[in-house]
Amino acid sequence: MIMKKNSIVLYIVGILLIFEGAFLLLPMFVSLIYRDGNWMWYLLTIGICLIPGIPLARIKPGKNLSLKEGYIIVALCWVVLSIFGAIPLMLSGDIPNYVDALFETVSGFTTTGASILSDVTALSRSGMFWRSFMHWIGGMGIFMFMMAVLPMLGTSDMNLMRAESTGPSVERIVPHVRDTARLMYSMYFGITIAEMIALLISGMDLYSSALLTFGTVGTGGFGLVNESCGTYTAAQQMIIAVFMAASGINYTFYFFIISRKIKEAFHIEEVKYYLAIVFTSTVIIAINISHLYQSAGESLRHAFFQVASIMTTTGYSTADFDLWPELSRTILLILMMIGGCSGSTAGGVKVYRIVLLMKQFAKELSVLRHPREVKLLRMDGNTVKESVIRSTNVFISIYFVIFFISLLFVSIENYDFTTGFTAVAATINNIGPGLSLVGPTCNYGFFSAYSKIILIFDMLAGRLELFPMLLFFSMLKPRRK
Amino acid sequence: MIMKKNSIVLYIVGILLIFEGAFLLLPMFVSLIYRDGNWMWYLLTIGICLIPGIPLARIKPGKNLSLKEGYIIVALCWVVLSIFGAIPLMLSGDIPNYVDALFETVSGFTTTGASILSDVTALSRSGMFWRSFMHWIGGMGIFMFMMAVLPMLGTSDMNLMRAESTGPSVERIVPHVRDTARLMYSMYFGITIAEMIALLISGMDLYSSALLTFGTVGTGGFGLVNESCGTYTAAQQMIIAVFMAASGINYTFYFFIISRKIKEAFHIEEVKYYLAIVFTSTVIIAINISHLYQSAGESLRHAFFQVASIMTTTGYSTADFDLWPELSRTILLILMMIGGCSGSTAGGVKVYRIVLLMKQFAKELSVLRHPREVKLLRMDGNTVKESVIRSTNVFISIYFVIFFISLLFVSIENYDFTTGFTAVAATINNIGPGLSLVGPTCNYGFFSAYSKIILIFDMLAGRLELFPMLLFFSMLKPRRK
Repeated sequence: MIMKKNSIVLYIVGILLIFEGAFLLLPMFVSLIYRDGNWMWYLLTIGICLIPGIPLARIKPGKNLSLKEGYIIVALCWVVLSIFGAIPLMLSGDIPNYVDALFETVSGFTTTGASILSDVTALSRSGMFWRSFMHWIGGMGIFMFMMAVLPMLGTSDMNLMRAESTGPSVERIVPHVRDTARLMYSMYFGITIAEMIALLISGMDLYSSALLTFGTVGTGGFGLVNESCGTYTAAQQMIIAVFMAASGINYTFYFFIISRKIKEAFHIEEVKYYLAIVFTSTVIIAINISHLYQSAGESLRHAFFQVASIMTTTGYSTADFDLWPELSRTILLILMMIGGCSGSTAGGVKVYRIVLLMKQFAKELSVLRHPREVKLLRMDGNTVKESVIRSTNVFISIYFVIFFISLLFVSIENYDFTTGFTAVAATINNIGPGLSLVGPTCNYGFFSAYSKIILIFDMLAGRLELFPMLLFFSMLKPRRK
Repeated sequence: MIMKKNSIVLYIVGILLIFEGAFLLLPMFVSLIYRDGNWMWYLLTIGICLIPGIPLARIKPGKNLSLKEGYIIVALCWVVLSIFGAIPLMLSGDIPNYVDALFETVSGFTTTGASILSDVTALSRSGMFWRSFMHWIGGMGIFMFMMAVLPMLGTSDMNLMRAESTGPSVERIVPHVRDTARLMYSMYFGITIAEMIALLISGMDLYSSALLTFGTVGTGGFGLVNESCGTYTAAQQMIIAVFMAASGINYTFYFFIISRKIKEAFHIEEVKYYLAIVFTSTVIIAINISHLYQSAGESLRHAFFQVASIMTTTGYSTADFDLWPELSRTILLILMMIGGCSGSTAGGVKVYRIVLLMKQFAKELSVLRHPREVKLLRMDGNTVKESVIRSTNVFISIYFVIFFISLLFVSIENYDFTTGFTAVAATINNIGPGLSLVGPTCNYGFFSAYSKIILIFDMLAGRLELFPMLLFFSMLKPRRK
């Protein structure tokens, strides 16, 4: 009975582990190419994945998934993915402590980009590759990939996709789930290839181009050198900044573009607000930091790079923005909270929810001013469903509740307020660097294992948009009948 | 036409100014008793209030108020009250700069207790009295007072009371609005007298007893000495702490108590949660700070005093909690946000709203877990109306929006993050002291007039629970037809 009920869960975990084994082939090849001697650890981990994975994947799944099961399976799989993904980092000695390796792995898959490493360059070539490649896998989502490839999952209903995608309402952009998943990955591939080519043309080597691209298009942010992106040329920084900004846009925009519906593309309200926020913040910060740099162009470049990086929750940096004036720091902190568009690879609350919030607020004021007028909330010309409004409000409230509870737990370690506050903000929003002790030139290594586990939870909760993780943990308690 | 439409506004402003004139008699008498020579400034201000006040109060008001008009009139009157109330502080030379005097006055009426004074003891006796008396007037509300006293306003509908009272839903506790207002003020008077007697018995002089009582029952927090409450005896500190905690309780509780419905009183869910939060926070903080004090009793006393002070948004202190460990500081920061009960004199988001939020969250999780069960939100055994839930969600969202926008504006002054963040938190929640540069041993004097005006807005918006002030400012824009 239990076996039958959970057969779909076990089946999906099995498939997931086989996929993870397949992904691990890439760092293994990297290790063989660069002869860093770690290939056997990746091979061993592939074995560790396949031994439970293959028998589990042979189970015959019983039925379709409910939304609840979709949420729980997605949360479970992200936890499993991270637990197995951390193994080669530990075995190879790149990150000998398992909690640290797990932190780095969760940070990778959730595209947070927060690191516990004080010296990134001490990593082996294969370890650094695997770390960045996690961003690419996690950015668009592992289930999105599985749905795009597997016939069985591809014909399932929307609930897996809904649980893993970002934003309050996920729509199929084409009639079938599998086709939607394939289209999303095609566009993701397209953007990935475009950035890699641009970086190669700019004179960067293949290895760096690939890894930086993974970090950019997945909005992850793991760097290759300790200075993040500070050592690259201005042209390379601009390429990265433009692709970061592009990765924070709702992928529906690109779907319209490739369907030659240019007008519709630029009529998506969320995208318009997103671009307006990026533009305004860049201008204000550029003015605010102009005394720190030699030319207006340099200020603008640093400002745009940082705005694109923080708003899309990537986390790359070209300058130590912790030293910028308080206005710029506060703008960046607010951009951290807002995040990118729904339906993009970026984290945060999402522009869509913020716009919906503002519209609700305007509506409430308007109702008070003109009590007899009936007014409906509209987005992109359509009335917004009551259930979307309610879930958005609950989302934002729960977001702050989780935020403050995490802050409380982290504060037990007795670091300063800015450190604790921005460490939680940077992990729950999947950004990476915060301010003060977790600023762009620092790392998360000094936190105790206790705080790291809280921040690991925040990263996963942030990536899966709160509900899957909360539901997963609420299911660990015995259910009352 | 315009005259007729606004006649009720003008009439109420007139009445308000006459009341303010009457209230100013008290500091005038204090000045005469203590011979500090400022009586003529109070007399002059009484004249300034009455000259427009008397003719305006003779206007025949046209009609009853809508909720919108109620909100706008309340916001307007609080602004007028503050503008006139600041005059004697400036004229007497107690606070020569008018923006500073206005900051101090708004801080007084909104029961914030944030001061721009570096040396409180330099104030004249009458100035200090007026400052603290504002807390008492603002605590229960100026309209509540007017409704209790005036026949005309007393028979009006609930909309003025609703706009000035705290919490998401204000109910008449007895059938008539005027009787409710009278009952509220009677209980307020009762608590005031009780605390004054307790402090007098403890050996405190009448002047100090009165002023500290105003600051406690109004949950204001202006002190009489630069050390706030640090110089008083342990017994006096405990009296103040108990009355602070008592002032944060929903007044319906006291209504049940005097109606001898003891069981009903302790069944109010909000009160139970409030007491549980006070108790839990006190215990955790006492343990967290135990190494700083000589005995467990002393730690407990400081912890209880600070928890009661911050949670009720009073702002008195017996110790410099800015030096406490980060866990205690973070707990206090979260208590700042939560605030006291609805229907009390305390500020903040209110326990009622937080409980409602948690229940919504539990309901959403439960709906996901058991999709077929129908579950309603209940509070005190009754189903909560959909409109209350919606307005609570909008309130909390708007609260954070105003919070972050204010933080952005204040950050232009380039003080550290903790200062800006807690300055906004301490004013919008009507607490008074924050952390870092606005910590309990510091003051708000160093901010520019620009930041002071933003914080003045936050204090008023916080006291009137956001909507009246926002509506007021949205009406200043010309209305589109």
